[in-house]
Amino acid sequence: MLAEASRFPFSGLEVTKRIDHITYYTPIQDSAGIITPAPLHFMQTHASEIPDLDPKEHRLTIHGMVERPLSFTLDELKRLPSVSRIHFVECHGNGSPARHSDHEKKGSGVPIQFVHGMTSCSEWTGVLLSVLLKEAGVKKEASWLVYEGGDPGKYTYTLPLAKAMDDVMVAYAQNGEPVRPAQGHPLRMLVPGWEGPFSVKWLKHIKVVDQPYITWNEAMNHSIPRPDLGGKSRWHHFQMAPKSVITRPSSGHTLSGPGFYEITGLAWSGYGTVRRVEISIDGGKTWKDARLQAPILRMAHTRFNFDWNWDGQETLIQSRCTDDQGETQLSVAELYKNWGYTDYKSQDKTRAIHFNAIQPWRIAKDGSVYDAMFD
Amino acid sequence: MLAEASRFPFSGLEVTKRIDHITYYTPIQDSAGIITPAPLHFMQTHASEIPDLDPKEHRLTIHGMVERPLSFTLDELKRLPSVSRIHFVECHGNGSPARHSDHEKKGSGVPIQFVHGMTSCSEWTGVLLSVLLKEAGVKKEASWLVYEGGDPGKYTYTLPLAKAMDDVMVAYAQNGEPVRPAQGHPLRMLVPGWEGPFSVKWLKHIKVVDQPYITWNEAMNHSIPRPDLGGKSRWHHFQMAPKSVITRPSSGHTLSGPGFYEITGLAWSGYGTVRRVEISIDGGKTWKDARLQAPILRMAHTRFNFDWNWDGQETLIQSRCTDDQGETQLSVAELYKNWGYTDYKSQDKTRAIHFNAIQPWRIAKDGSVYDAMFD
Repeated sequence: MLAEASRFPFSGLEVTKRIDHITYYTPIQDSAGIITPAPLHFMQTHASEIPDLDPKEHRLTIHGMVERPLSFTLDELKRLPSVSRIHFVECHGNGSPARHSDHEKKGSGVPIQFVHGMTSCSEWTGVLLSVLLKEAGVKKEASWLVYEGGDPGKYTYTLPLAKAMDDVMVAYAQNGEPVRPAQGHPLRMLVPGWEGPFSVKWLKHIKVVDQPYITWNEAMNHSIPRPDLGGKSRWHHFQMAPKSVITRPSSGHTLSGPGFYEITGLAWSGYGTVRRVEISIDGGKTWKDARLQAPILRMAHTRFNFDWNWDGQETLIQSRCTDDQGETQLSVAELYKNWGYTDYKSQDKTRAIHFNAIQPWRIAKDGSVYDAMFD
Repeated sequence: MLAEASRFPFSGLEVTKRIDHITYYTPIQDSAGIITPAPLHFMQTHASEIPDLDPKEHRLTIHGMVERPLSFTLDELKRLPSVSRIHFVECHGNGSPARHSDHEKKGSGVPIQFVHGMTSCSEWTGVLLSVLLKEAGVKKEASWLVYEGGDPGKYTYTLPLAKAMDDVMVAYAQNGEPVRPAQGHPLRMLVPGWEGPFSVKWLKHIKVVDQPYITWNEAMNHSIPRPDLGGKSRWHHFQMAPKSVITRPSSGHTLSGPGFYEITGLAWSGYGTVRRVEISIDGGKTWKDARLQAPILRMAHTRFNFDWNWDGQETLIQSRCTDDQGETQLSVAELYKNWGYTDYKSQDKTRAIHFNAIQPWRIAKDGSVYDAMFD
């Protein structure tokens, strides 16, 4: 793994490059509000370089089970009715157990940026995919899409037609400016609330089909065996479940001494809107409501705040989110139990996706903050 | 006037520097959604350089008619309860008549960026000023603030205490990242809905007083004689009145031929929330409602869209905004009449502030777009 220096705060750690991956992590420990600046949006690509596509030459084609195959330039897409919506995108591997600090390890461990920093929230602008599909005329037998990026790896994913016709966007702008190369310039798919892999970058081809194709990326990169499924993987994973995380204070921060602090963090749900975030400052014995800051938007990060007087004693702080579907974040113990794992404290931490367990931070007497997920 | 090259699209025009001014213009002709990326936020400073303040050394002091004078570091402010809110900031000189194209001039004239580009919209995060003033204990005789920036010119402005106790913020973050040097790093005042000069950058001192001080900046830079006031100036100008402007197509754009286009633009009001935006595509004879895009927030830009089939004939397109206080944008003729000017087509265009007239764009047969405000 080759670490590169950059302008991100944790120099040497923040961008990772491997032969089949480039990853950026959003510095959520320093974030404020809900908007992630475009250059700080997390990114993961299954390729060793970021494509440099010419926006004047790039075309998006729609073919397969349609009445009229279509091909659009960027300028042609920009002439069509547009929408702008604030949505999070989260990698399905965000916060995976394997990224958490070893509870035996000395020091405060991995900063939150590299544990939970693969979620970001932007205002995306583009054309609803339904507008393009209606123009192409989807045949009545069609039920899925297979779509592909213009990256060297031809990253490909599948999407149910019902979602495609609902709120999916072909995005050409992020936070008011053209989508940047790392985020899919000139075009990316934006699939609100669903795991990041659906939001294919450098979007080039959309084929309308009548079954869920099992793409290489879905099969090779995104399948994880689970005990509760008899060692099999779930084939398709869609919405990201409700999650919240205290971003300040978090691992990597140090409190300067007892006194007043504002606990703040982010909550989101791929099912809809955040309804409630509760905070515990006593290791989970009692919970109190945090303040939710407007705007509270569907499938977007929601900022929460909580007033806290730290008495200087060691304690655990944690947050849990409930969304408007009544779904509530579980503890890691509950989540592992649901998944059929008996020992969540195992040193051999599983690689898991869609991991939304409650994140406890341990505040030591000296003010340092530790990841206590697996303590 | 020294023009500098930069990464903005209209090279050589986009940043202007004079001995007593630096100005950046937001490229609203290319914007999407409502969020302005921080590096593209407009900026005007009454100084010849941008201060480079050390955030570890910088202090904000509150003194004058208070029980307890206070002094805060940035870190101390960040420990206090925070708020994040999406608001526009608009220079009171934005769109001033003197910036509009000469209607006799050949060519399509000044691009919209340099006419209406001194308005921008961000998510600002900080501490409510009311929290700090309550902590300091404002004496009952107090009624105004005088506050000063840490720039070389010690830019100073005054603010009624009632507004200060309402929704004014001492902001340390913009769109999720620390406020940038050009925007007031490490701290700026953010006075929602009011003209830009109130939102003092590099905020350093706040003095609580019992009368409106007439600062040099208010008297020398921001006073414009008006016929309707017998040649006198209005002393204080507060909220920016409702305004809207079609950003695409606008001067600087060229349509590629007849056919479907989306007309899109921004609307806002310092009085509250945008309720309605109407579009005319026939020179003002008829008006139809534009679609307003969520989120529609108080004292924030609101994006509007309108489907349009251009028949290839010369026409005028324009938008007008109505806010939730029932205020509607006026034509330049109506506005000038209210101000006591008889001839709004005068070649000697007035310098005016709080100029929110309806902006007509003329589409020529060849698809080029002209500023028709003073035609």
